[in-house]
Amino acid sequence: MVSSQKRRIPVAVLGATGAVGQTFIRLLAGHPWLELVEVAASERSVGRRFGDVVHWLEGSIPRTAAELTVLPCTPEAVTAPVVFSALDASVAGEIEVGFACAGRTVLTNARNHRMDPDVPLVIPEVNPEHLALLEVQRAQRGWKGAIVANGNCSSIIVTLALAPLYQEFGIRRLFVTTMQAISGAGYPGVPSMDILGNVVPFIGGGEEEKIETETLEMLGRLEDSGVAPARFPVSAQVNRVPVEHGHTACIAVELERSASPEEAAQAISSWRSAVADAGLPSAPERAVVVAHAADRPQPRRDAGAGGGMTVSVGRIRCDPIVDLRMVACGHNTVRGAAGASLLNAELMISRGLIPA
Amino acid sequence: MVSSQKRRIPVAVLGATGAVGQTFIRLLAGHPWLELVEVAASERSVGRRFGDVVHWLEGSIPRTAAELTVLPCTPEAVTAPVVFSALDASVAGEIEVGFACAGRTVLTNARNHRMDPDVPLVIPEVNPEHLALLEVQRAQRGWKGAIVANGNCSSIIVTLALAPLYQEFGIRRLFVTTMQAISGAGYPGVPSMDILGNVVPFIGGGEEEKIETETLEMLGRLEDSGVAPARFPVSAQVNRVPVEHGHTACIAVELERSASPEEAAQAISSWRSAVADAGLPSAPERAVVVAHAADRPQPRRDAGAGGGMTVSVGRIRCDPIVDLRMVACGHNTVRGAAGASLLNAELMISRGLIPA
Amino acid sequence: MVSSQKRRIPVAVLGATGAVGQTFIRLLAGHPWLELVEVAASERSVGRRFGDVVHWLEGSIPRTAAELTVLPCTPEAVTAPVVFSALDASVAGEIEVGFACAGRTVLTNARNHRMDPDVPLVIPEVNPEHLALLEVQRAQRGWKGAIVANGNCSSIIVTLALAPLYQEFGIRRLFVTTMQAISGAGYPGVPSMDILGNVVPFIGGGEEEKIETETLEMLGRLEDSGVAPARFPVSAQVNRVPVEHGHTACIAVELERSASPEEAAQAISSWRSAVADAGLPSAPERAVVVAHAADRPQPRRDAGAGGGMTVSVGRIRCDPIVDLRMVACGHNTVRGAAGASLLNAELMISRGLIPA
Amino acid sequence: MVSSQKRRIPVAVLGATGAVGQTFIRLLAGHPWLELVEVAASERSVGRRFGDVVHWLEGSIPRTAAELTVLPCTPEAVTAPVVFSALDASVAGEIEVGFACAGRTVLTNARNHRMDPDVPLVIPEVNPEHLALLEVQRAQRGWKGAIVANGNCSSIIVTLALAPLYQEFGIRRLFVTTMQAISGAGYPGVPSMDILGNVVPFIGGGEEEKIETETLEMLGRLEDSGVAPARFPVSAQVNRVPVEHGHTACIAVELERSASPEEAAQAISSWRSAVADAGLPSAPERAVVVAHAADRPQPRRDAGAGGGMTVSVGRIRCDPIVDLRMVACGHNTVRGAAGASLLNAELMISRGLIPA
Repeated sequence: MVSSQKRRIPVAVLGATGAVGQTFIRLLAGHPWLELVEVAASERSVGRRFGDVVHWLEGSIPRTAAELTVLPCTPEAVTAPVVFSALDASVAGEIEVGFACAGRTVLTNARNHRMDPDVPLVIPEVNPEHLALLEVQRAQRGWKGAIVANGNCSSIIVTLALAPLYQEFGIRRLFVTTMQAISGAGYPGVPSMDILGNVVPFIGGGEEEKIETETLEMLGRLEDSGVAPARFPVSAQVNRVPVEHGHTACIAVELERSASPEEAAQAISSWRSAVADAGLPSAPERAVVVAHAADRPQPRRDAGAGGGMTVSVGRIRCDPIVDLRMVACGHNTVRGAAGASLLNAELMISRGLIPA
Repeated sequence: MVSSQKRRIPVAVLGATGAVGQTFIRLLAGHPWLELVEVAASERSVGRRFGDVVHWLEGSIPRTAAELTVLPCTPEAVTAPVVFSALDASVAGEIEVGFACAGRTVLTNARNHRMDPDVPLVIPEVNPEHLALLEVQRAQRGWKGAIVANGNCSSIIVTLALAPLYQEFGIRRLFVTTMQAISGAGYPGVPSMDILGNVVPFIGGGEEEKIETETLEMLGRLEDSGVAPARFPVSAQVNRVPVEHGHTACIAVELERSASPEEAAQAISSWRSAVADAGLPSAPERAVVVAHAADRPQPRRDAGAGGGMTVSVGRIRCDPIVDLRMVACGHNTVRGAAGASLLNAELMISRGLIPA
Repeated sequence: MVSSQKRRIPVAVLGATGAVGQTFIRLLAGHPWLELVEVAASERSVGRRFGDVVHWLEGSIPRTAAELTVLPCTPEAVTAPVVFSALDASVAGEIEVGFACAGRTVLTNARNHRMDPDVPLVIPEVNPEHLALLEVQRAQRGWKGAIVANGNCSSIIVTLALAPLYQEFGIRRLFVTTMQAISGAGYPGVPSMDILGNVVPFIGGGEEEKIETETLEMLGRLEDSGVAPARFPVSAQVNRVPVEHGHTACIAVELERSASPEEAAQAISSWRSAVADAGLPSAPERAVVVAHAADRPQPRRDAGAGGGMTVSVGRIRCDPIVDLRMVACGHNTVRGAAGASLLNAELMISRGLIPA
Repeated sequence: MVSSQKRRIPVAVLGATGAVGQTFIRLLAGHPWLELVEVAASERSVGRRFGDVVHWLEGSIPRTAAELTVLPCTPEAVTAPVVFSALDASVAGEIEVGFACAGRTVLTNARNHRMDPDVPLVIPEVNPEHLALLEVQRAQRGWKGAIVANGNCSSIIVTLALAPLYQEFGIRRLFVTTMQAISGAGYPGVPSMDILGNVVPFIGGGEEEKIETETLEMLGRLEDSGVAPARFPVSAQVNRVPVEHGHTACIAVELERSASPEEAAQAISSWRSAVADAGLPSAPERAVVVAHAADRPQPRRDAGAGGGMTVSVGRIRCDPIVDLRMVACGHNTVRGAAGASLLNAELMISRGLIPA
């Protein structure tokens, strides 16, 4: 154990005090390949013991993390070669570039660089080949380091649910209505006065646009000139609901090649992840599963599947207008945020893109 | 006051102990045209004081109702000429026919007779002319009484939200995803273990089919041969959410004649109810309003608009696939159930179809 | 109507954008004696249309209020002779003194002056005679105006529940454990991540101390030297629970003179408010009622009793250690805040302490 | 692993479809000493595949359990030597006696036999010596088997929180107000219409009496004539709150020998469980811990501590009337039900009372 720990790659979390930052720290506790050595946050917290400044949201704070001193979010202060960014979009853009410039590998959950043409927007099971963009990124930007992004929480869940269908049948049009958990808004995030016993049919920050663009990007094909996004129109409507964790998406999809609900379920169940054999520690046994009970998936009961890394798809049935309708559900702060970045790091390690 | 009370029409509520039955009783308290004189329920409660058998769900039980003795659901026991049915679908069908046979006017919230071709399925503001079916009903069935139905809670809310657009622009295709309140399932209804902090993407009893058929029926045109339903396909996905009252519907709609969000909002705001001048006591000032704030409508804040009888429509915006998307919200046990039946009764009175 | 409106006293609300400020505005809509003419708030909002700056929390904003321009919280800007203060404790103290100095009558919900020996802390039904302190206040402070306070939301509910027992049997010791609604924390107040599906056994701002001191003050006797607080020890433990409105208190009380649960219930039911005949518009028919069902009172079902001004007491039973235990429940932002100030204003008007 | 699995003791769960039954099955999955081989439930389910009849409440049903055929709750049908009873109190009494008669060891969560003088009511960390009652039980009843009970969920949590203080300082009087999770009522249990956004100050089945008696029993001393209960009066008030798992108790306690909050915290932190060295697989590292943050413990964040087997105590502070007040929180279906029975079984195995 001691020897294996020696080999773990030191990592830092930027924006460590927030909800996603905390999820990074929870998921890194006991990670076999990665070791949390530094936490960084805004000036207010710098220089203080992490355990003293963080309002810990879930369970108990890991002891070693609690003892860390909060660093400023600069490549001078933070020394780890691999950096997870849970920074707010208002500051993430420049800080992440600074770290990449300084030779660090930045795995970011922020939206700032997601749609940059030379930044891979990756779900390892779906489009690991997009990492090839890193060559373009380094060539164009002259960075020694790199920025690799994961999608918005809803985009990831929708993309994973649809990837098997897209690959097998093609998609012509997509309607998505989401019901999103409060943890997606961070902390303090959604005031309880707004959401207790309520539904709020609006989420700021361009949530609908993210789903409409990122999904296509992640399903896109790597070409010489970059990633050619998938080409089908997406209509997304988003809602906030009083659920702690787990985004649920009601999907209606028109396929290129028609499929029955049974064929769709079969395509999902037999879908083979692009990294099935890579042995990535955070990869769940199955990235997408079919929930067969008539009233599933449900966020409180299914978001935790596969340690929060499995997306559940259920209620696959014929639609009176398009081909199929169905419901997808996944854990927004794990599969949809911190776990997504972590898995991207593992993918890069397994491909030698991060030196061990 | 005494003289006006003398003229009030005596009414009974069947299924008075349930959630919808209780809503009837709340709404009838102090009603200017109608006077609750009898309550009826299942055998278990018969012969007992209503206040002693009902598990009252909201506020305090009206005193006069509490003192009533529960009657069996038969036209022999119940004498009122006008009967509101909040019966469960498992028994409503036959009981309602029995009352109609016996010359009573039955205003029903149950689904059993809704799609009968000779039973008017009415929203007074939208399709009051459907009441003409009563002639067919009486001729065909030989009843002295009548059955008039209101739609399912979600159908009513969706229909009211869309009626202005349907009448002005025509509808080609409709996608609806609902987030429905727990009160829609009655009492005891949804176990808290299922819904607290959760979303359940399933509602039994053919909820989705109801929306897909009843909406078309209520928007249908009265012809000589009966009602010709509106002709456009509807795709409905339904969810239960931890909200007490108020169903919310995310709508994507393709119009016959394109309209901008502004034109749609204008059509709704300037829409004239078919009974605007009838002076129906339960009719709200406006049956449909546009909620202009970016994050409205919301069930907890908007379901109570117009005493629960107004449907709020917001977030009207362009859709990447069809013409428009929007969010509608209304009170499911008031506008979507008991209030709907009550308004139908008022409509019938105003048209002389119920003798005062 | 015009003539009666002419006679209404013009009032202003300080801190109008907050949760309590909004409740003042809701309760003032259509008030027969008082007319809202001005709203004031923090600098950020000053000069803007109230309807544009307020995040309205409940139902729809009254139209006339929406059109008001937000004023700064100074007696120069605000001209109304009567001022309701929903200010935050961090600023309320000085601002309220300023208004009192300038000759205005300040009815405050803030905690700053509550325990000042010359500031009446009043519940009209319980201790209206404490208003006599105003003479001391004016004499000592040299104000032309006045400050009259209401208690903390929990204190008021507990005091009203216990006043009949205190007056009839005397109290020796009191244990209170509260379960308090989120609206008590204002807006944005409690983050949903903290309270959804959770209980937080802590409320900042000295909530427990307020209950332990204010209750005694309000039950205190007016003497020549001022108010002599009631003399019994109080132990209060407070919790935040995921309830929108309505504080619930589990009470165990040792009496001076023993009483059975039936005698206690009788004392409450037959208790005569000190202002029973004053015709105060916001006074409910009964300030305290006994809820007889075994599982009542409950905040969602009982907080709204008497328009939110009635406190419900139930589950009165013998206690194995002290005499009695029971549960009290009341509306925290109405009876426990804005409605309390409003009723105090009405009391002052009825006694000629505010010139009409 | 294979060899150790061979040695696992076969066990059955009676009442397997209910909420507590399911928790047994979850906790037994992968248990090192015990192997679930049979499930039994009411007639309705008998003969069917367990996975087909159970409405699984939390996560996914363990595969091997799902494949079991549901047996009737009789010692003829169920063959396992060790039986966990999650039966409803309406039937548990006789069935459990039947199993004990038939030579089985019954670990029961039902209340029926808890207060029988010859049935050990055990928390292993607190009163393992009470198991000596089994000799009396066998002698008096002539059973070859045995019944061992665990307390009511709230009693266990309160007892664990207080055991260190009772043992160190003695207790003179105890006031407890609980806020209990919905899972304590089983499934379907509490209707959502009753509890969403609400508090219900009542729990049926004598919940308050259980706390008032069982706590004393579990803190009692084993004497020749049986267990002499602890002798101090207990006042318990219980409430249902909209929390999924985790009961919270506000406690005010008068000690025999005064202690400061610091001394109390120290007594809890240094408390040594009676089975600290027994190596029981389900025993947490610490049975009681002190939560130091000002706003902890909280059910959603702390009930899961120690795999749901650790009780957290916080907000220990001076009380104006008795010595101390504090807040305790624990997982009601794990530590307070299924986990409690499981730990009792492990204790019996470790002491040779169940043959391996």
